[in-house]
Amino acid sequence: MSASASTPALIALDWGTTSLRAYLLGEDGAALDTRASPAGIMKLPAGGFDQAFEETCGDWLDAHPLSAQLPVIAAGMVGSAQGWVEAPYVETPAGAAALVAGIVTVKTARGGIVHVVPGVLEKGVLPNVMRGEETQIFGALASESALNEAGGALIGLPGTHAKWAFVGNDRIERFYTFMTGETFGALRDHTILGRTMHPSATHDEPAFVRGVDTARDAGHPGLLATIFSTRTLGLTGQLSAEQQSDYLSGLLIGHELRGLNEVLARDQSSLVGRTLRLIGNDALCDRYRAALARFGCDDAATVAHATERGLYRIAALAGLVGAPVRAA
Amino acid sequence: MSASASTPALIALDWGTTSLRAYLLGEDGAALDTRASPAGIMKLPAGGFDQAFEETCGDWLDAHPLSAQLPVIAAGMVGSAQGWVEAPYVETPAGAAALVAGIVTVKTARGGIVHVVPGVLEKGVLPNVMRGEETQIFGALASESALNEAGGALIGLPGTHAKWAFVGNDRIERFYTFMTGETFGALRDHTILGRTMHPSATHDEPAFVRGVDTARDAGHPGLLATIFSTRTLGLTGQLSAEQQSDYLSGLLIGHELRGLNEVLARDQSSLVGRTLRLIGNDALCDRYRAALARFGCDDAATVAHATERGLYRIAALAGLVGAPVRAA
Repeated sequence: MSASASTPALIALDWGTTSLRAYLLGEDGAALDTRASPAGIMKLPAGGFDQAFEETCGDWLDAHPLSAQLPVIAAGMVGSAQGWVEAPYVETPAGAAALVAGIVTVKTARGGIVHVVPGVLEKGVLPNVMRGEETQIFGALASESALNEAGGALIGLPGTHAKWAFVGNDRIERFYTFMTGETFGALRDHTILGRTMHPSATHDEPAFVRGVDTARDAGHPGLLATIFSTRTLGLTGQLSAEQQSDYLSGLLIGHELRGLNEVLARDQSSLVGRTLRLIGNDALCDRYRAALARFGCDDAATVAHATERGLYRIAALAGLVGAPVRAA
Repeated sequence: MSASASTPALIALDWGTTSLRAYLLGEDGAALDTRASPAGIMKLPAGGFDQAFEETCGDWLDAHPLSAQLPVIAAGMVGSAQGWVEAPYVETPAGAAALVAGIVTVKTARGGIVHVVPGVLEKGVLPNVMRGEETQIFGALASESALNEAGGALIGLPGTHAKWAFVGNDRIERFYTFMTGETFGALRDHTILGRTMHPSATHDEPAFVRGVDTARDAGHPGLLATIFSTRTLGLTGQLSAEQQSDYLSGLLIGHELRGLNEVLARDQSSLVGRTLRLIGNDALCDRYRAALARFGCDDAATVAHATERGLYRIAALAGLVGAPVRAA
């Protein structure tokens, strides 16, 4: 590694509702160090954003000869109305240059400048918003040639609020939010469905796939009805208490993909044989890949390092690191 | 009223998970007195079923010359595995005679006999179960000639777990369960959707109808996606904090009716122009009627007294009251 590559050039923050992840990046964008903190914007310490930032990144700054000059970039809910500073949404179609133009800054107690990346808003009958995912998407686009083919790309970001984004010409054209993770938690922990579930240390793949297939198959009466089968398959001895959680997870992810298929059908397309990419934690992306396979989609690799690559890319476009790169 | 009609002939119990409703019925089936108790099977007093029964109906029995001989019939979760005595499910297609044949009895501390009506099970890929609704359905069939036309009838029972039953030849042929009420509560109270809602004393009909229409209209990506609009319509100033709860309620009921329409489509049918009946509390049935109208269904009256009529009808078929009536 060259001396310049190992010199810290950027602090990059992925600052969400329930966690803060910090990356110390070199001139070439490689991570020199990383930190994870539970200090999401809803779980801040008494000293607020400044204290959370100091606790997580203070020693990086202490080690830097001109600590107030080490640039800092942040994406996620840190830019929401409840964040450190509000960075108003950029509207779709949104390219990286629009995100750079929407950056809002806030000064730290130490005198440094934090550059907060805006989220993206899609107006319409069913408006959609994202904060943080837009940065991951631009990180994925930088490294995945498969996503830049003509006709546009599809990127999935599984999670509490799963996102599916359609990208073309290096812009986020439209996207959908599925409250899959949060709905799963609410149903498991706060409805009758959880009462017959026993926790299991291992993932039950057949139960998961059965849930996916049930949601996928046509002619059923929809999610509000299919979820009740989590209980009735148990009552009739067809699903053990240990299998019910994975079955319900498969059902909900299956309903999400079925909904995505309905969206694709508007363009005479479907998931069958499609190339797409996933961004998220490995275990969850594995689940989605297994579910996508049941919908005929077998090319859905996980993009690694999308978060820090996206933050670095936007910082570079903003002229915070390296030679200023002109936005497309 | 004749002397015989005003003589108590039957104690009829609608005993569910969270409440117990008791009816003192005369020889003609009319209610002479009613009681409501919070002693559902999950909220029993220390003395269990017997004590709850005594607290609710003890004075009726005390007033009866031969109290141990006043027949008692009960339907609902009281017959579940967690109930007073388990009355195993009767399978679809299920007529009133099958319910009578499936009655299981339990002796009270006072020496009387409680006749517990079984629930109904529909086997299949998505099994369904009901306990209590089968009795209400047979009560509705007894009084509603519109439900006994050729081609079968459709009865909706809104609630925590809404049921939709297809009835033909005086039998429950098949039915569906939609976890609409419970899912609404879980989403409102245990997801981000509730955080931007303000409670409102009044029902906001336009917000409710907007939710119904959003769920109804084709081409959308499904419930997991549409529910997020409760939040984003708020973020974009299109839905006030006071409207969001009714909008979400409309969305979920709309998704239920959309699912019901998919079921009907299998038989080349739909909700448009259909005659059906509702059983349930007035405010909730009003909501369903408003939602059904958005689906083109304007003949959906609420059936009154379905619970006690059903209990009386089954008791009569079982020979517990009046002249024994032969089941069809």
